[in-house]
Amino acid sequence: MGCSPRVIFQNIPDPLIKSVSDYVSSPIGVGILGLGTVGQGVVRILADSAEMLERRIGRPVKVVATAVRDLDKKRDYLPAGVVLTTDPMEVLTNPEVDVVFEAMGGIEPAKSLILKALRLGKHVVTANKALLADHGTEIFEAAREAERAVCFEAAVAGGIPIIQALNVGLAANRILSISAILNGTCNFIMTAMTRDGKAYGDVLKEAQRLGFAEADPTMDVDGTDTAHKLAVLVQIAFNQTVGTDQISRRGIDRLEAADIRFAGELGYVIKLLAKARWRAEGLELRVSPTLVPKGSQLAEISDSYNAVRVEGDAVGDTLFAGRGAGMMPTASAMVSDLIGISIEPKARIRASAELWKSSGGTTPLIGVDEHKTRAYLRFQIPDRPGQLAYLAQILGDNGISIASVIQHEPEAQTGTEVAFVSLIIMTHMATSGAMRRALEQIRKTCELRGEPIILEVDGRTGQPN
Amino acid sequence: MGCSPRVIFQNIPDPLIKSVSDYVSSPIGVGILGLGTVGQGVVRILADSAEMLERRIGRPVKVVATAVRDLDKKRDYLPAGVVLTTDPMEVLTNPEVDVVFEAMGGIEPAKSLILKALRLGKHVVTANKALLADHGTEIFEAAREAERAVCFEAAVAGGIPIIQALNVGLAANRILSISAILNGTCNFIMTAMTRDGKAYGDVLKEAQRLGFAEADPTMDVDGTDTAHKLAVLVQIAFNQTVGTDQISRRGIDRLEAADIRFAGELGYVIKLLAKARWRAEGLELRVSPTLVPKGSQLAEISDSYNAVRVEGDAVGDTLFAGRGAGMMPTASAMVSDLIGISIEPKARIRASAELWKSSGGTTPLIGVDEHKTRAYLRFQIPDRPGQLAYLAQILGDNGISIASVIQHEPEAQTGTEVAFVSLIIMTHMATSGAMRRALEQIRKTCELRGEPIILEVDGRTGQPN
Repeated sequence: MGCSPRVIFQNIPDPLIKSVSDYVSSPIGVGILGLGTVGQGVVRILADSAEMLERRIGRPVKVVATAVRDLDKKRDYLPAGVVLTTDPMEVLTNPEVDVVFEAMGGIEPAKSLILKALRLGKHVVTANKALLADHGTEIFEAAREAERAVCFEAAVAGGIPIIQALNVGLAANRILSISAILNGTCNFIMTAMTRDGKAYGDVLKEAQRLGFAEADPTMDVDGTDTAHKLAVLVQIAFNQTVGTDQISRRGIDRLEAADIRFAGELGYVIKLLAKARWRAEGLELRVSPTLVPKGSQLAEISDSYNAVRVEGDAVGDTLFAGRGAGMMPTASAMVSDLIGISIEPKARIRASAELWKSSGGTTPLIGVDEHKTRAYLRFQIPDRPGQLAYLAQILGDNGISIASVIQHEPEAQTGTEVAFVSLIIMTHMATSGAMRRALEQIRKTCELRGEPIILEVDGRTGQPN
Repeated sequence: MGCSPRVIFQNIPDPLIKSVSDYVSSPIGVGILGLGTVGQGVVRILADSAEMLERRIGRPVKVVATAVRDLDKKRDYLPAGVVLTTDPMEVLTNPEVDVVFEAMGGIEPAKSLILKALRLGKHVVTANKALLADHGTEIFEAAREAERAVCFEAAVAGGIPIIQALNVGLAANRILSISAILNGTCNFIMTAMTRDGKAYGDVLKEAQRLGFAEADPTMDVDGTDTAHKLAVLVQIAFNQTVGTDQISRRGIDRLEAADIRFAGELGYVIKLLAKARWRAEGLELRVSPTLVPKGSQLAEISDSYNAVRVEGDAVGDTLFAGRGAGMMPTASAMVSDLIGISIEPKARIRASAELWKSSGGTTPLIGVDEHKTRAYLRFQIPDRPGQLAYLAQILGDNGISIASVIQHEPEAQTGTEVAFVSLIIMTHMATSGAMRRALEQIRKTCELRGEPIILEVDGRTGQPN
C-alpha cells in the first residue's frame, strides 16, 4: 500500500490552534479564491473592520493572496502587497495563508480546490451550498482527515446566523421542525405577484431588470437552490445526510396569479417554503409553494428577505429573519466564520468532523406519499348541479376531509357553451398519497378545464402559525 | 500589601481546557444553585439529552451537586447520587464541579456565590439579567482574574440565541441599532389589550390568574426588567457598560386603551420596545411603549413572545424571535452555554474577558432631550374653532412638523358644557427636547382635559419597517 495522504497532512501544525494558547501577534493569513461580488465584500469588511477584528480575535487579519480570472480588473479595498494571481494553487500553497475563502461558486474547480486546501492544512470558509449539498461527504471526509474546519454560515440565508444558532444556541434541543424561506429571488417574485396581482412571467422579467433574478433563473425558481440549502440545514439540525435529489421539490415557475388571489381570499399568502419535519417514523422533507396564514411570521417575510422558523423540543418556536444573499450579508457571514475559526479552532474542527459522516444519522426519509399536509385544491369545473358533491365524495372516499370551500358565481357566459367556474377546496390534514389518488380519480371521472391545482398549506387547522 | 486573590486563583488548572486537547472521557461536572423552575428545567434537559450532549461535547455531563432551600421537596429528573445540600458552598467547593449554574435569581446571595465560584476556578452559567446589568463590572472583573467564563445566553430573551448571534454570527458587523421586545409579561398584556380593547388593570389581573404575570409585576410592567436586558445587549453589541439607571424608561402601567385604539386607526400597534441606536454623537438608549407599524415584523410578535431586531452595517436588518422565558426555553439556553463552555472554553473565557471592562467602550450616551424620534401625541381639547391651528403653531415653532392628524366628531354632548374631543397628531422626526418644550407650552396655554399623552413611534415617515 502506498503512503496515505491522511498520514502526511495530519501532521501539519495548525497555526491557529497554537495561537490561541499563546496569543501570538502574528497575523491570521487569508487567501481568497475569486474576487467577484462576494470576494470583494470580504476584502471590504476585512479592510473596514481591521481594528475590530484584531480586538475580537487577538491577532490582526491579513489578506495574503487572491486568485482571480482577470488580473487587470480594477479592485477596490485590496490592500497593497496582496498576491494577485490567476493560479489558485499559488494561493493554496502560500505558507502565510491559514484560512482559504472559496468565493467562486459552482462545483468545479471549487470542489477540487477546497479538497486541496484542506490537504495543505488550511481551514476553509465557503458559501457554496450546491457543493455542500451534493458533495458534502467528500469535503468533510477530507476535513476530518486533515483535522481542519470547513465553515459555511453564508451558505444558507447569508445574513442570518442560522448555522451557528443550530450548532450552538439551540444545541440543547431536539429539533422538531424547520420551515424556511431560503431563496430571495423567489420571495421577491412572489411578493410582487401578491402585491400587484401580476403574472409570474411579467414579474420575473421585472426582477431580472432590477437584478433580483439571474438571466437564467432556473436553479432559483425551480426550487433547486432552496433544496440545496434545506439539505445543509438538515445535516446540522438532524445530523442526517440527504442528497438534493432525495428532497421532493416544486418551484414557483408554474404558479398562477389566480391561486395567489384565491389564497388571499382564504386568508393566506403563498411562499416557497422548505420544510423538514421530524416524526417518529422519519423525516419529511420538501420544497414547495405553500399557503402560509396571513399575520404569521413567515407570511410577513417580504421581498428578497429570508427566514427560518425552527421548532425545538425545549425552546418551542423560534424565528430568524434577514437578508439571504447579497454582497455584504454574505461577506459578513463568511467573516464571522473567520472569527469563529480564529478564536475557537478546536471547536470548529470538532464541529466539522461531525458533519456529513458516513456513520451519521440514520433517520429514514418519509416517502412523499406518506407526507402529511393540509392542501389547497383548485378545480375548474362545469357550472352544473352535483359537481361539488361529487368531488367531495371522492375526497371523502380517500379519507380527506374538507375544511372550507370557495366557489364564486360564474362570469357572464359567452354563447351557449357551459361556463366553467373555479372551485377551491381547503382540506384538513391528509397524506400526499391520498391526495394524489383522489386527484387521479377526479381527473379521470370529471369534466375539468385544465389540470387541477394542488398546493400545500402550512399549519394545522384552526391553529395557523 | 497582602496576598492578592488574583495570584492564588489564576493557577487553578481548568479541567475543561485540558479536556479539549485530550478528549478525556471524564465527565463534565455541573453544580446547580437553586432548583426552582429553571434549575429543574436544566436538570431535566441534562437527563433527557444525555446522549446528545455527550455526542456534541465528546464527554458525558454529570450533575454533581445542587444547593436548595428545602431538602424534603420532591425533585423529578434528579439522578441518584447527586449531592443535595442547603449550603451553596458545598456545591462550589466540590472538586468534581467544573461549571456552576446560578439559578437562584436576585442580587444576593447570587452575586457573592458567583464571585466565589469564579475564584474557586469554576465557570459560571447564569440567567440573572438584573445582576449582570447592575454588577457586571464586578463579576467580569472576577472572571478575568480567575480566567474563567461567565455565560448568560438565558439572561436576554431566553429562547432566542441572541447573545451568541451578536458575539459570533454578527461579529463582522458594526451594530447600528437594536429594537427589541424583551418582556413577555408586558407583551402578553399589550397583546390582550390590543385584541380585546380592555383596560390595563383588567388584563393584568387576567395575566396574573393565568401565570403570565407575577403577583408583584412592578419590575416587569414599569420597564425595569426590559432595561436590565437592554443593558446586557448594549454591553455586547456596543462594548459599552451602562447602568440600568442610565436608560430612560417608561413602562406600560399607565398606558390607556384609547391610545391603543387610536394607534390602530393610524395603522400601528403599541409594543414595549427597548431601543439602542448608534449615532455619530453617541448612543441613544430607551425603553418605552412605542407605536410599531402593523405588518412589520415586530408588530406581529404576540403574547409572551420576545423578539430582537438587529441592524448591522454589513448584514442590514435581521430579526430573531422566540419565547423569552419559561422553564424549558431558559434551561435550554443555559445548557447551550454549557455546551459552548465545554467545547470552546478558551473562546468563552476570551469573550468573557472582553465584557464589562473599565477600559471598555467610551461611546457617550445621548441625553434624552437629544433623542430623535417620531411621536404620537394625544390631547383632549375643547371642540372649538382654532384649537388645532393653535397646537400646530406651537409644534411648528419648536421645529416639529406634523405627519398626520386624527380628530373625530365629538360624542353627543351632555348638557351645555363644552365637549372635549381627542386630537391625535403624528409628528415627523424631532428631538425629545423639542417635544417636551412644545408640550409644556401647550399645557400652559391651552385648555386641556387631562394630561397630554406622548408615545414614541418606530420607523421613519413613509418608511415603516
